[in-house]
Amino acid sequence: MFFASDNWAGASEKVAEALAAAGAGPAPAYGNDEVTTAAAARFSEIFERDVAVYFVATGTAANALALASATPAGGIVFCHSEAHIAVDECCAPEFFSGGGKLNPIAGPAGLLTPEGFAEALAKVPDGDVHHGRVAAVSLSQATEAGTVYDTADVARIADLAHGRGMTVHMDGARFANALVATGQTPAEMTWKAGVDVMSFGATKNGCWCAEAVVFFDPTRGSDFPYLRKRAGHLFSKSRFVAAQFLAYFDDDHWLENARHANAMAARIAAGIDAAPAARLAWRPQSNEVFGIFTDEALSQLSAAGIDVHQWPSHAAPGSDGPNAGEKLVRLVTSFRTTEDEVSRFVSEVSLIAA
Amino acid sequence: MFFASDNWAGASEKVAEALAAAGAGPAPAYGNDEVTTAAAARFSEIFERDVAVYFVATGTAANALALASATPAGGIVFCHSEAHIAVDECCAPEFFSGGGKLNPIAGPAGLLTPEGFAEALAKVPDGDVHHGRVAAVSLSQATEAGTVYDTADVARIADLAHGRGMTVHMDGARFANALVATGQTPAEMTWKAGVDVMSFGATKNGCWCAEAVVFFDPTRGSDFPYLRKRAGHLFSKSRFVAAQFLAYFDDDHWLENARHANAMAARIAAGIDAAPAARLAWRPQSNEVFGIFTDEALSQLSAAGIDVHQWPSHAAPGSDGPNAGEKLVRLVTSFRTTEDEVSRFVSEVSLIAA
Amino acid sequence: MFFASDNWAGASEKVAEALAAAGAGPAPAYGNDEVTTAAAARFSEIFERDVAVYFVATGTAANALALASATPAGGIVFCHSEAHIAVDECCAPEFFSGGGKLNPIAGPAGLLTPEGFAEALAKVPDGDVHHGRVAAVSLSQATEAGTVYDTADVARIADLAHGRGMTVHMDGARFANALVATGQTPAEMTWKAGVDVMSFGATKNGCWCAEAVVFFDPTRGSDFPYLRKRAGHLFSKSRFVAAQFLAYFDDDHWLENARHANAMAARIAAGIDAAPAARLAWRPQSNEVFGIFTDEALSQLSAAGIDVHQWPSHAAPGSDGPNAGEKLVRLVTSFRTTEDEVSRFVSEVSLIAA
Amino acid sequence: MFFASDNWAGASEKVAEALAAAGAGPAPAYGNDEVTTAAAARFSEIFERDVAVYFVATGTAANALALASATPAGGIVFCHSEAHIAVDECCAPEFFSGGGKLNPIAGPAGLLTPEGFAEALAKVPDGDVHHGRVAAVSLSQATEAGTVYDTADVARIADLAHGRGMTVHMDGARFANALVATGQTPAEMTWKAGVDVMSFGATKNGCWCAEAVVFFDPTRGSDFPYLRKRAGHLFSKSRFVAAQFLAYFDDDHWLENARHANAMAARIAAGIDAAPAARLAWRPQSNEVFGIFTDEALSQLSAAGIDVHQWPSHAAPGSDGPNAGEKLVRLVTSFRTTEDEVSRFVSEVSLIAA
Repeated sequence: MFFASDNWAGASEKVAEALAAAGAGPAPAYGNDEVTTAAAARFSEIFERDVAVYFVATGTAANALALASATPAGGIVFCHSEAHIAVDECCAPEFFSGGGKLNPIAGPAGLLTPEGFAEALAKVPDGDVHHGRVAAVSLSQATEAGTVYDTADVARIADLAHGRGMTVHMDGARFANALVATGQTPAEMTWKAGVDVMSFGATKNGCWCAEAVVFFDPTRGSDFPYLRKRAGHLFSKSRFVAAQFLAYFDDDHWLENARHANAMAARIAAGIDAAPAARLAWRPQSNEVFGIFTDEALSQLSAAGIDVHQWPSHAAPGSDGPNAGEKLVRLVTSFRTTEDEVSRFVSEVSLIAA
Repeated sequence: MFFASDNWAGASEKVAEALAAAGAGPAPAYGNDEVTTAAAARFSEIFERDVAVYFVATGTAANALALASATPAGGIVFCHSEAHIAVDECCAPEFFSGGGKLNPIAGPAGLLTPEGFAEALAKVPDGDVHHGRVAAVSLSQATEAGTVYDTADVARIADLAHGRGMTVHMDGARFANALVATGQTPAEMTWKAGVDVMSFGATKNGCWCAEAVVFFDPTRGSDFPYLRKRAGHLFSKSRFVAAQFLAYFDDDHWLENARHANAMAARIAAGIDAAPAARLAWRPQSNEVFGIFTDEALSQLSAAGIDVHQWPSHAAPGSDGPNAGEKLVRLVTSFRTTEDEVSRFVSEVSLIAA
Repeated sequence: MFFASDNWAGASEKVAEALAAAGAGPAPAYGNDEVTTAAAARFSEIFERDVAVYFVATGTAANALALASATPAGGIVFCHSEAHIAVDECCAPEFFSGGGKLNPIAGPAGLLTPEGFAEALAKVPDGDVHHGRVAAVSLSQATEAGTVYDTADVARIADLAHGRGMTVHMDGARFANALVATGQTPAEMTWKAGVDVMSFGATKNGCWCAEAVVFFDPTRGSDFPYLRKRAGHLFSKSRFVAAQFLAYFDDDHWLENARHANAMAARIAAGIDAAPAARLAWRPQSNEVFGIFTDEALSQLSAAGIDVHQWPSHAAPGSDGPNAGEKLVRLVTSFRTTEDEVSRFVSEVSLIAA
Repeated sequence: MFFASDNWAGASEKVAEALAAAGAGPAPAYGNDEVTTAAAARFSEIFERDVAVYFVATGTAANALALASATPAGGIVFCHSEAHIAVDECCAPEFFSGGGKLNPIAGPAGLLTPEGFAEALAKVPDGDVHHGRVAAVSLSQATEAGTVYDTADVARIADLAHGRGMTVHMDGARFANALVATGQTPAEMTWKAGVDVMSFGATKNGCWCAEAVVFFDPTRGSDFPYLRKRAGHLFSKSRFVAAQFLAYFDDDHWLENARHANAMAARIAAGIDAAPAARLAWRPQSNEVFGIFTDEALSQLSAAGIDVHQWPSHAAPGSDGPNAGEKLVRLVTSFRTTEDEVSRFVSEVSLIAA
């Protein structure tokens, strides 16, 4: 399948080599080794402040445990209705938070708007034990729709949240793609805009398995070691994650990987935009492109050996969604996507008559 | 520190190389790739029957999720009072089972006896909603004390458990060490003796991160995919675990690693047994040696540059425990332990006067 | 406050007297007494089949535990977006189900439509571990909006649910009000229409504290005793609930209470409908009336000593909602509501100029 | 069955009458009524300080929710190995605390000793994420064995607990019986000895259903309203509990009830002590008597129409336990126990030859 997911890529050579090199010799277990310490220090450098970093096994674990740390009994977490935490994590956030509730909010092209958030927030009064209580808001940067939050919007949402005593969480499964799309620094995109805790994902962008929860105020994470261990997410040979992160950050490897993925996505998007038999569902900003294709176009592509991932149409924001006889298609690029693949796809798409 | 833990070793060269080789090219995510399929097939071969295999991130996750799959509301899990699940997993089994209770049972040298189990079981009547209900028994093979269950005892315990409708779980974090200690086959040590589900650990014995839950009757695991995903333990790039397992099993690599570790432990044990200033707490059978040293002996060892891991003395079974002026010490070997390390240790210990 | 809630009423005289009479003499604890057995038998008579009945302390507990019994790991429960379980239970359903997710669905006047349910259901594919899995649908009869489901709609929703292997739950906190509104039998309104398990509430309609979970197929409830006890909802002196239920059912006391409450609500509704300064948000069918009043009208009512409960306007279905300068008001009647209260209210409302 | 349980008694006349009187008229729901306010004020008077009081449905709920409020992720609660929370609550404490672990400690006649507690505490180091962390200690006053803690021991245990940052919980299901056994004030028995939170039970001693969680420092309970509501333990018609408590406290009704029960138990104990065919397992101090009877004696009693509750013999502390040919028997008295019943029992027992 073409451009099925950035999870289909293995590890980058640089990451794989670093991991291979890290194996020799003994080192203390459970994160008390020098490689883990060095990786943690790199996070603080990258974010320009002392942060607390905790590795976990998956992005789902990072999201669910980060949110659990911010969600007391009866707590409510606000998010976009198509957020990964809302539709792709098998209730992990609800489970780890002891039954916290997700409050999904619709918004254009995967983006939660400050207005939408304010409206949803207003429906949950303070001090009403029946309703539960507001706990956190979670923003995906980049979003599941391939779009990227304007930092001013993040800051407005964070202000609203902090005004109600809530925690602001960022799901950074594709954080590098968002960074290079905007040219912002990691600090600008997160804590300077009001983000309190983030899920920092490196798996989709070159690692085998490298996910971390980052608390920008380390004291907020003081309980996290227990949440993580109780969840079975404390690796014994922690350095196998740390070594991947060190390679990932080294020499801007992560940003280069993301730039490549975004550039490939941009070429795909341009191809769709220009094609008579397809159109963009919305303009992509990172490494995911959502196109709307006629059924006939998909048949022709398939006949040409190009199968693509049809996406449930309900995920498309209203007016931009597919019409009858059309399908929504998701195309995801990664550090591994080749120019040849993209060229072949664009070429075939351009040949299909409307 | 000498012989601190088998978690201090990195990955074996064979495993590290296999992992490095597995990185190139795309493959479906979430376990739908060929490498994962091949690794799963290897498990079935090794166990001589069709088994269901689910990778998870850690041994704690494997134990907690395997037990959760067997523990309904109010369920009670019996285990040795020094089992890893009882003292080293931060309540993960209780958490994932929705508050299941562990019923710890004392027993000599880390071993749960059929008699001890029968006695504990008799205290929990069937159909008494107040007390809760019996759900599972968990056996560590090899144990946390470096001993190995006699399969006849496993079978007796399993018979008692099955007679009450319970599930038999084996914590196989050091399964390979137990296998080579006894010469049994994987099938003989598990399902042929009545084990229903096991935690299969490869991390301590040569891998970076390779843990699996194995259901010997695949239908018992039908709910497990949801338990695992909800726990954030479904890896997206599943082949990074699968590749490790394939190398681990290849050419009896796992058994060789375990044989080496056990042999090193046997030499350490022989040295302690012969030394005037120390004695064995009990006779080790796998890769963990528990010795009792005088305080003076530990001082001299430390002066010679050999620091060892003092173990909480309560973990020692009654009459064999340390006396005043003595300490219990745990020494763990791995595939990485060198003959030189062992020789130096044994030599220094032999020199200390009683 | 006028017509604040049916929870403001105490116990009816008949119920209070029966409870007082039940106190003397010893009886086995935890539901093994004759009064509890008699009450359970009455449930089976009323529903015209053998049912399994479990008392719990509150309607929230009944809903949450009933749903927990039907919701496995990663399970999703569909309900109206204004259902009590969705907005008034502090995440109890999510908590007791180990993090199950509620999938709220909008619908007119508190009613989930078969079409709305079908659409929501279609978004959750079978066998997709990421999304979770469909588990149950919950219908409130009567609804939080004072409306009553057409049994044909219940049956259509139940068919859709059963077609996906789901459980159909009815929240019957105001079940008696729905019964007398339609003239149906308890059997017709529940299991004959496809309901599998219900929360049977008597507290709002004359009891102090009498709530039960009823399984129409008793085998479905086989695990429930453990769920209930683990939740702290097994009363030791069970007969104090049973005695209330016996009085409640005796001589159609429950239906008479409900008829009175509904009749009072109908008079209030007629008064609002006729008043120039107010209108009905939608036509009520049971004991809750939602009216839309001008701000001026509310001021005049308040000046006349009549304060009413303003309801969050978001709860109103779109086009019927309050405009600027208007408020949504909820008025709830009970067995205790007097004709004088109603007359005074209707009279005052009728006097206010538009 | 004779003296089966104090849960077999209904409500006292005084309590039943007060409840009947409280039913008329409207009152705000969910604890915002005057009766609830008055009852809460009575608690503060009785304990001679401002306390926070929360009603719940059962003693199990009181214990589990009180402990949940004190138990973070990976938290461990210490208790006697025969405590109600350990053997009679179907894992409710584990469930509500998100998988907290109970650490049972043996001790003579149902009593946790400061020495036993200190020893158990020493096995759980601070800051060891693997083991979990100490959270609370729970003491039953009176105990399940009918004994009563010396307040000096409570204070020593509380000092140890507070020295580790733990919460001290008292299970007061039979608090009144302990009070009258010692002549202490409620304050002396609780917060003056270091108790932080208690389960205050009135159900066993004259009420239908009246259980409360009492925080001696109200700020500790600030999260409790959410824990309670999420658990389905917030009664809508709260005054039905409050009215019972008001009658319970009125005119020392609760102490009189307890005095009667204790006196009846003392007479039973004296009878057993004097009988040739039976002996006391240990000396009772409240309303539970544990006797050891020969099998022959139990047969003769049964032939005389007196059946008693055989208790699992493991519950007896070692040396005092039943020998072969003997059984442990539990006899519980209540406010309802009559002198005639006691006389008949004592008389029959005295007639049995050794």
